[in-house]
Amino acid sequence: MNIRSAEKIGYSTIGKEVKRVDAVQKVTGQAKFVADFDMKGMLYGTLVLSRHARARVKYIDISSAKSLKGARAILTYKDIPGENQLGEVVSDMPCLVPEGDEVRYYGDVVALVAADTLKIANEAADMVRVEYEELEPVLTIEEALEGKNKVHPSGNIVISKKIRKGNVEIGFLHSDVIAEDDFYAHYQEHTYLETQGILAVFDDDCDLTIYGSMQCPYYVQEAVSKILNLPINRVRVIQVETGGAFGGKEDVPSYVAAQAALLAYHTRRPVLLVYSREADIQTTSKRHPIKSHYKIGLSKNGKINAIEVVAHMDVGAYATLSPIVMYRSLIHAAGAYDVPNVKVDIDGVYTNKVPCGAFRGFGTPQVFFAIESIVDEAAERLKVDPIELRLKNALRVGSRTATAHLLKESVGAVQTIEHVVKMSNYKTLKRHVARFNVKNRFKKQGIGVSHIIYGVSLGAAGQHLDAASALVQVHKDGSVSLHIGNTEMGQGARTVMTMIASEVLGQSMDRIHMANPDTSYVQDSGPTVASRTTVFSGNAIKEACGKIKQRMTEYFAKTRETSVNDVIFERGMVRTSDGAKRTSFDALARECDAANVKLIGTGWFRTPKLHWDPETGLGEAYITYAYATQIVVVEVDLLTGRTNVIEAHTSHDVGKKLNPVGLVGQVQGGFVQGMGYAISEDLKTDNGKILTDNFNTYIIPTVMDIPKKLEIDFVEDEFKTGPFGAKGIGEPSLMPTPAAIANAISNAIGKRIKRIPATPEYVMSLLR
Amino acid sequence: MNIRSAEKIGYSTIGKEVKRVDAVQKVTGQAKFVADFDMKGMLYGTLVLSRHARARVKYIDISSAKSLKGARAILTYKDIPGENQLGEVVSDMPCLVPEGDEVRYYGDVVALVAADTLKIANEAADMVRVEYEELEPVLTIEEALEGKNKVHPSGNIVISKKIRKGNVEIGFLHSDVIAEDDFYAHYQEHTYLETQGILAVFDDDCDLTIYGSMQCPYYVQEAVSKILNLPINRVRVIQVETGGAFGGKEDVPSYVAAQAALLAYHTRRPVLLVYSREADIQTTSKRHPIKSHYKIGLSKNGKINAIEVVAHMDVGAYATLSPIVMYRSLIHAAGAYDVPNVKVDIDGVYTNKVPCGAFRGFGTPQVFFAIESIVDEAAERLKVDPIELRLKNALRVGSRTATAHLLKESVGAVQTIEHVVKMSNYKTLKRHVARFNVKNRFKKQGIGVSHIIYGVSLGAAGQHLDAASALVQVHKDGSVSLHIGNTEMGQGARTVMTMIASEVLGQSMDRIHMANPDTSYVQDSGPTVASRTTVFSGNAIKEACGKIKQRMTEYFAKTRETSVNDVIFERGMVRTSDGAKRTSFDALARECDAANVKLIGTGWFRTPKLHWDPETGLGEAYITYAYATQIVVVEVDLLTGRTNVIEAHTSHDVGKKLNPVGLVGQVQGGFVQGMGYAISEDLKTDNGKILTDNFNTYIIPTVMDIPKKLEIDFVEDEFKTGPFGAKGIGEPSLMPTPAAIANAISNAIGKRIKRIPATPEYVMSLLR
Repeated sequence: MNIRSAEKIGYSTIGKEVKRVDAVQKVTGQAKFVADFDMKGMLYGTLVLSRHARARVKYIDISSAKSLKGARAILTYKDIPGENQLGEVVSDMPCLVPEGDEVRYYGDVVALVAADTLKIANEAADMVRVEYEELEPVLTIEEALEGKNKVHPSGNIVISKKIRKGNVEIGFLHSDVIAEDDFYAHYQEHTYLETQGILAVFDDDCDLTIYGSMQCPYYVQEAVSKILNLPINRVRVIQVETGGAFGGKEDVPSYVAAQAALLAYHTRRPVLLVYSREADIQTTSKRHPIKSHYKIGLSKNGKINAIEVVAHMDVGAYATLSPIVMYRSLIHAAGAYDVPNVKVDIDGVYTNKVPCGAFRGFGTPQVFFAIESIVDEAAERLKVDPIELRLKNALRVGSRTATAHLLKESVGAVQTIEHVVKMSNYKTLKRHVARFNVKNRFKKQGIGVSHIIYGVSLGAAGQHLDAASALVQVHKDGSVSLHIGNTEMGQGARTVMTMIASEVLGQSMDRIHMANPDTSYVQDSGPTVASRTTVFSGNAIKEACGKIKQRMTEYFAKTRETSVNDVIFERGMVRTSDGAKRTSFDALARECDAANVKLIGTGWFRTPKLHWDPETGLGEAYITYAYATQIVVVEVDLLTGRTNVIEAHTSHDVGKKLNPVGLVGQVQGGFVQGMGYAISEDLKTDNGKILTDNFNTYIIPTVMDIPKKLEIDFVEDEFKTGPFGAKGIGEPSLMPTPAAIANAISNAIGKRIKRIPATPEYVMSLLR
Repeated sequence: MNIRSAEKIGYSTIGKEVKRVDAVQKVTGQAKFVADFDMKGMLYGTLVLSRHARARVKYIDISSAKSLKGARAILTYKDIPGENQLGEVVSDMPCLVPEGDEVRYYGDVVALVAADTLKIANEAADMVRVEYEELEPVLTIEEALEGKNKVHPSGNIVISKKIRKGNVEIGFLHSDVIAEDDFYAHYQEHTYLETQGILAVFDDDCDLTIYGSMQCPYYVQEAVSKILNLPINRVRVIQVETGGAFGGKEDVPSYVAAQAALLAYHTRRPVLLVYSREADIQTTSKRHPIKSHYKIGLSKNGKINAIEVVAHMDVGAYATLSPIVMYRSLIHAAGAYDVPNVKVDIDGVYTNKVPCGAFRGFGTPQVFFAIESIVDEAAERLKVDPIELRLKNALRVGSRTATAHLLKESVGAVQTIEHVVKMSNYKTLKRHVARFNVKNRFKKQGIGVSHIIYGVSLGAAGQHLDAASALVQVHKDGSVSLHIGNTEMGQGARTVMTMIASEVLGQSMDRIHMANPDTSYVQDSGPTVASRTTVFSGNAIKEACGKIKQRMTEYFAKTRETSVNDVIFERGMVRTSDGAKRTSFDALARECDAANVKLIGTGWFRTPKLHWDPETGLGEAYITYAYATQIVVVEVDLLTGRTNVIEAHTSHDVGKKLNPVGLVGQVQGGFVQGMGYAISEDLKTDNGKILTDNFNTYIIPTVMDIPKKLEIDFVEDEFKTGPFGAKGIGEPSLMPTPAAIANAISNAIGKRIKRIPATPEYVMSLLR
């Protein structure tokens, strides 16, 4: 174990409890979200959506809509100056469905409207007449595989991926116990507080500025540049305050921006396009439903010999990010264990439903639910404690992952298990639960465990995007400006980046300001996903600040006649180690400015090269891995099927705690969102149309549902390449929860949960 | 002589005739000046000005103005949250004159008003009641020196500067001919087409953005930061299209911005403050009037032995930039000659009139008028041709300037003389003029010559500001964005920077875009003055592009298995020298992006260290010098005193022609502005109040006044430190003209012109 306290190595900001830098703005309502923008001459945009899951568009008639007073533009595919093509990975998605082509789900966009008010825009949208020829839709994974109807001419299988490690047949042959089962994990909706929104503004120099709620400004920039046929240097994208994202604002804002930009292009007026909650839920991406079959073989001593997985993901009408989500599902499908024989096959299939895409965990909560359930089944058969079984098979330094990636450092997996056992007082807890269950007939408690691994970075399949850029400027009064290419969407990036800059420069945090990410300041820094911001942008900020500090150090040493090795930047002061020579950071900045010392610097961090073989699925899948273990206690009402989570203990290996308060916030939020996925968030569809398109029918946890006891712990097994040793937390925070809760319910009711969300209806169906 | 053509050393953009990059926007009226901004909720600002040249402010009553409907803010000195202090060099100038203090000229600002419309704002301004106690003003240099009344408590002499080179007494003792005379050069008004204007906008995060017409965004940033007591990282300054500046937008926009920012701060609404032409002429800086006494001693052979100068500058009510303008007047006072003994004394004095400041030439056209006149007087006495005399005393490599700066390279002075002699067919021209004068009784022609030197950069006294920063980004589609800290004000900086980037990267100019200067992208790059932008920002752009090119070269060489030394970037292509391996710049950018090659870079150029002694005025005054020689022919109507300039020939040593079309434009504009100063632009005052406060009374040349024959030539004596060898042109373009025209008039009428502008009235006074 390698836990070092901040105090010991003398950090002044890193690891300390600090105030979130954007707290006041957000709490007081001053923070400006895109819907708060109100520009002179601004128009309001809206969409004309498909009215069928699958149909041929025969004719689009905009004439009457056009004549409506106050309607300023009604656009169809004919009005696209560039390519009518969206989609980050596969070019299968039009921006506006052309006549003659098919609408492929209820959220497909047929026309765009801009008007003086939103009311007029919606009225005009209703007046657009589209003649359809209805076609039989593909609505399930089974129908897709059957292939009678095709969502796209290319066929219904989008992409297939596999892992072939060792030989699972031999592994099973040598196993004493084999468990095998089917699992299904359903959709999840992001339910970010702020719906999708973009403001597109042309200036008179033919330059376009996009303001909006988003995770990935560079995706937006490229998409808009293609749609409008503009060079990238004329398209500037500024991310403004983003009210939650969770992956739902990874690729979708590119589509929203393309729509808004088209309207602005044709009207030459600013156009604000903010989705209604219903339009947002109907059209935007979801967590993928995954059907899977798991088989696991173990020796009597508890060692896992082989894991075999066959899984199918429901991609929806367009591929969007599915190929890369599938990469992550694939890599994580066999769980967090040291297993010699692994075979995974995973297919993504098109259906005439909402496209699925990125969602916190990115294709892994579904497979962790399955692997952790089957591991629990195996434990039951072996009659060993589930914790003990996980501890036996956990990854350690020297282990190899499911893709045979040799782990050389920063493997805090075992510590996370040890910590939760201790935190939860696991043995006593088991006794308490047993006693409760003896006493109660209609309410049963259960304990559930899960143990996960998470690949930090975009990984081998996303290396071409995996870099980050920073620009730092120390002004002549010592105040500091930071620019990065990754976004703040509520997760606390602004605070962590400010802390890193403060630590390096020794300048106080309140003198440092991180601007809204803006593509014009920094190079493409990849998407803000994959829990990569702290590592990637953090390293870039560290490098940029380090360059400036170096030059200020040289100036200080020269003018104060001291060695560059004896200059310390700390708490707003710059001094020799004995303190004999000292000046404030602000005063030194002023001096350096007058001496023409360069006080601006760029930082650039790129992924170390990863070797991975797509044929076998083996190799270095990610730059490093985070680990987590969770124990939850649930109470199930056997008369209603309703589950309450009453206690949870979770331990995360984060490499290094940079912002402890931020980490706790992430884990709290991740836990609650994972809980919603585990028990209540049930997306219902009818013939491909989403029925649960607002919060009255799509049920997310409320503050009343959060367990009274939610204990959070961090393991600090430092990752050398991370800034100050840090890894990531954004997604691992959610990932163990659905599996742990499902296992706890199974434990409580004595029946295996094989489908999440384990709604009351589903639980009752098992009890009947 | 060292003229090399672009072809010979193979430049593809440098030295070529290109289209001005902002031509279309400007010609079609799409270019957006600050007065074109119209933001939601925007208020209009206006000023309450002093009504006296000198008076004590007893009481300011804003109560009735405040009650006017639509008036949103009436501010006085009490409303300033930071320091009530403006002024770049000396802190002698309030933003708003406090009660109890004095107004010191007619343009002093007592209160600020913001209202829903400009009309209401002006009405409210009229309703502000100020009770004054009138005081006797100081109106002339003589009154200032007399010292009966003091403009500031510190006394009327702002600052004194001197040069002591050799011993002028001995120089005169050894001279065969001595000429001595008094000269006076008057005010000149900048008459930029666009008056001063600033838009100040607060966002909800307490950040202030200033948009405006300006030369020096970093001056504005610091001034506003002080007035509002905001850290610099919360004040962003964006220069928008600037319709002419000529030095008039060097420091003045800081004051305008402070006024607009105060109004925005108190109203929390965008405030647009655009000066009326009258307010602009009444309040903003002018070229300094300079009275001087010149004495020159020469040997019979024509060598100048000694020059002695005593000069007084009328600084006006506040020092503003006068101390640094005086530095330039001082250095240039003894002209462009190799003279062993030089003595210069120059004083700046306060008067209760408009503050004088920066103006194209920066304190030199006044002293060149004087030195070139006295040299002509000496030539007359020696009976040598004025050209011959100048050639004899001209600076060469190995010469020392008036400050004893040893010239080691890039001294094209002699070539400029030789070129104008050849261009003008000087001997024939003299015969033609003589013939004309024989034939005509009431119209007389005259030939005038001038020869000047110009110190490029801010010089020894401004070294602390003399650096420049650049940020360049190559986007993944190969399009390029440039950011610099110096401004485009019509002089063509955008075009030259784009050319430099194009030359380095081999990317075509239409794929490169230079954004509006914005303090948030680049470090303080000093003021955009002193003809320094091409050298300073040009070098910074060159360095930034060079870094990116280097990384792209390495990538190309590695992937194409060739040597980094064999990679050529040219005409949008990247290739090996034999052309066997080649790809477009755009495609290579796309590849580099996917390979995580860093495609962003900063550039930083700082002045080489200059050694100069303020006690003696000797040393390295500037990083290098530009030279020019001009011959003009005028025709004076002896009955009206009116002068027409009928022919002009001018040769400039620019080091290297980067943008030949731009250079010609600069020289044409500079010539015409110099001509206005020489003969027509006569600022008239009454008791300190400017009477000629619009173009009906302040007479600038029209297109009809431009000589039919204006021949322009460039000498290319490369300056090693300049980008591709370039020096500067902005100010030298104007500087020889007033002197040459004055000499030509003297030559025509047979009387020495001792005052400029040589208006018809003045010329008639000599003829009477």
